[in-house]
Amino acid sequence: MAKVLSGAGLRGQVAGKTALSTVGKSGSGLTYRGYDVKDLAENCQFEEVAHLILKGNLPNQTELDAYKSELKAMRGLPQALKEVLERIPADAHPMDVLRTGCSMLGNLEGEASFDEQGKVTDRMLASFPSIICYWYRFSHDGVRIDVETDDDSIGAHFLHLLHGEKPSELHERVMHVSLILYAEHEFNASTFTARVCASTLSDMHSCITGAIGSLRGPLHGGANEAAMEMIERFESADHAEQEMMGMLERKEKIMGFGHAIYSESDPRNEIIKRWSEKLAADVGDTVLYPVSVRCEEVMWREKKLFCNADFFHASAYNFMKIPTKLFTPIFVMSRLTGWAAHVMEQRADNRIIRPSAEYTGEELRPVPAISER
Amino acid sequence: MAKVLSGAGLRGQVAGKTALSTVGKSGSGLTYRGYDVKDLAENCQFEEVAHLILKGNLPNQTELDAYKSELKAMRGLPQALKEVLERIPADAHPMDVLRTGCSMLGNLEGEASFDEQGKVTDRMLASFPSIICYWYRFSHDGVRIDVETDDDSIGAHFLHLLHGEKPSELHERVMHVSLILYAEHEFNASTFTARVCASTLSDMHSCITGAIGSLRGPLHGGANEAAMEMIERFESADHAEQEMMGMLERKEKIMGFGHAIYSESDPRNEIIKRWSEKLAADVGDTVLYPVSVRCEEVMWREKKLFCNADFFHASAYNFMKIPTKLFTPIFVMSRLTGWAAHVMEQRADNRIIRPSAEYTGEELRPVPAISER
Repeated sequence: MAKVLSGAGLRGQVAGKTALSTVGKSGSGLTYRGYDVKDLAENCQFEEVAHLILKGNLPNQTELDAYKSELKAMRGLPQALKEVLERIPADAHPMDVLRTGCSMLGNLEGEASFDEQGKVTDRMLASFPSIICYWYRFSHDGVRIDVETDDDSIGAHFLHLLHGEKPSELHERVMHVSLILYAEHEFNASTFTARVCASTLSDMHSCITGAIGSLRGPLHGGANEAAMEMIERFESADHAEQEMMGMLERKEKIMGFGHAIYSESDPRNEIIKRWSEKLAADVGDTVLYPVSVRCEEVMWREKKLFCNADFFHASAYNFMKIPTKLFTPIFVMSRLTGWAAHVMEQRADNRIIRPSAEYTGEELRPVPAISER
Repeated sequence: MAKVLSGAGLRGQVAGKTALSTVGKSGSGLTYRGYDVKDLAENCQFEEVAHLILKGNLPNQTELDAYKSELKAMRGLPQALKEVLERIPADAHPMDVLRTGCSMLGNLEGEASFDEQGKVTDRMLASFPSIICYWYRFSHDGVRIDVETDDDSIGAHFLHLLHGEKPSELHERVMHVSLILYAEHEFNASTFTARVCASTLSDMHSCITGAIGSLRGPLHGGANEAAMEMIERFESADHAEQEMMGMLERKEKIMGFGHAIYSESDPRNEIIKRWSEKLAADVGDTVLYPVSVRCEEVMWREKKLFCNADFFHASAYNFMKIPTKLFTPIFVMSRLTGWAAHVMEQRADNRIIRPSAEYTGEELRPVPAISER
């Protein structure tokens, strides 16, 4: 029910209804349409979860096969979009690239009516890995890659385009898990951006373009990138502890810990941590994973702060040789499902989102002649 | 002070503070930093109002001259941006073009730190007319126009690029008025989109790109376009009355009337109406203006609905030979000032905007095996 404004940022204030997820309800940290995210991450492929979030149900085998085939057929990029991506410099922010790519796609294959909302969303889901990798490989390696692969999943497609070879089974599985964990998270800032935009009855590309822009902000997406930049400076677990103690003493901000909604733990952490450990064993790592574990111990011991979803994502992605600056774009490939589902939900029961403001400015005054200013 | 949620869409609910404008406060319908919009539209150029909104004060002559010179020098477009615009087809939605152009500009001239927020905003203010007209003239007329003109104002620059010749004094003045009227309007949906995005500490281009996407929605921007499409079908005032009575009887939606916040009149209407009348006299119009006046009379008599800012903008823009589909992009050129000022205000006293949702979905349930679905 309605709550009174308890502070800035609409914190704790109900801004609408959703049937898509619960965050921090006791006994189940994060659920998508009633399923615990741990259960989903353990037992599903990302495409099953995308189907659940976007179409309302976990698919049976026939539905899943059909959905994956559809997505596979949508991986190609229009020539005009490739030519746009080729004009974005290598030093651009990859989130700006994705924002521009999504916006450009809207010019070429716009959503003519809301009947097309499912189709244009699937198209984005299939083509975002193509967009980011086409730009990355062109601007960094000078090659025009073929983005139409026959990989079985979105995660494998991404890794294949990025590295030029099919990923291992382990890597493909970790991508499923990672994309499932990031898929949906209620009224976070980027999702709320998408809903505000949707409330004007704007098109899907506008909503998703806006959401990408919000996720780009350092207070929202990007925490896994910041975590990576920190842990890669540490040479050993002991070195990490020593450095972190210094950072804590200097009250420096340490990313990847704590959460605005969760107070005791982030349910996604134990899952990605387990996979990071497996990847570490697989690559024979003796530094990054132990460093990460020590960081977790220090933050809990010193500050009672727990790792959020982002922290062990840093090492996991690094073990799969994903460049740090592409971490947040992976978040987009996943969260796109939640954003689009929220847009559809907003459209189905819409009122334009138009709050009021408390005025703190000047009282009414006459305009002075320019010679009197 | 805080208000209790009174319904969907956060209507009437305080979502933050602003010193930029008041909407619908008794005795003064719309004020920017304490100045009545009527006073500003009567006595100022748009660049003075942009300076007021973005920099906090009405400029004196020296400041105004300097500001206009700065803006003039920022009209050019990077070659890569032109090449992107050339790849957007003629049938694209002009708002999608502007959204993409703004996003692309962020790749080429990104906001490296918040110290640059004033500069990147001025750059957008100066270059948005170039972006929309470069695309429009290239895609519709096949010409690559020179976007660097020496016109005195943003409005004149726009009309010059669009028509290939310098506008009359009257047309330039009407552009000043129009851009002033649309410049700022508190926490409307597009501005709120920009603020939500800003609250993640994202960059200015992301905030403005998102706002453009929200303004694109038919419930927000675009009402002047819809009004134009209606009035251009009417052959005379009597014909308009007859047709409107039919529309009212059939309960069809009629755009350009009423307002979510104003209840008695929109203070911007009488201003733009007066200028529309002057333009009608100037071009010798005997249809469109009388038709518009009759529409206003009928809606008031039958429904007690008043014209909002959009209604007489339709005829005014039409008298200046502006294609209907460019009406909402003009809104962007103007509202950009309000959006950017709100972003700056949000940044200066920020907390991430992250509301909650009322959950209406499934209770916790186990993931069934795929063979059991």
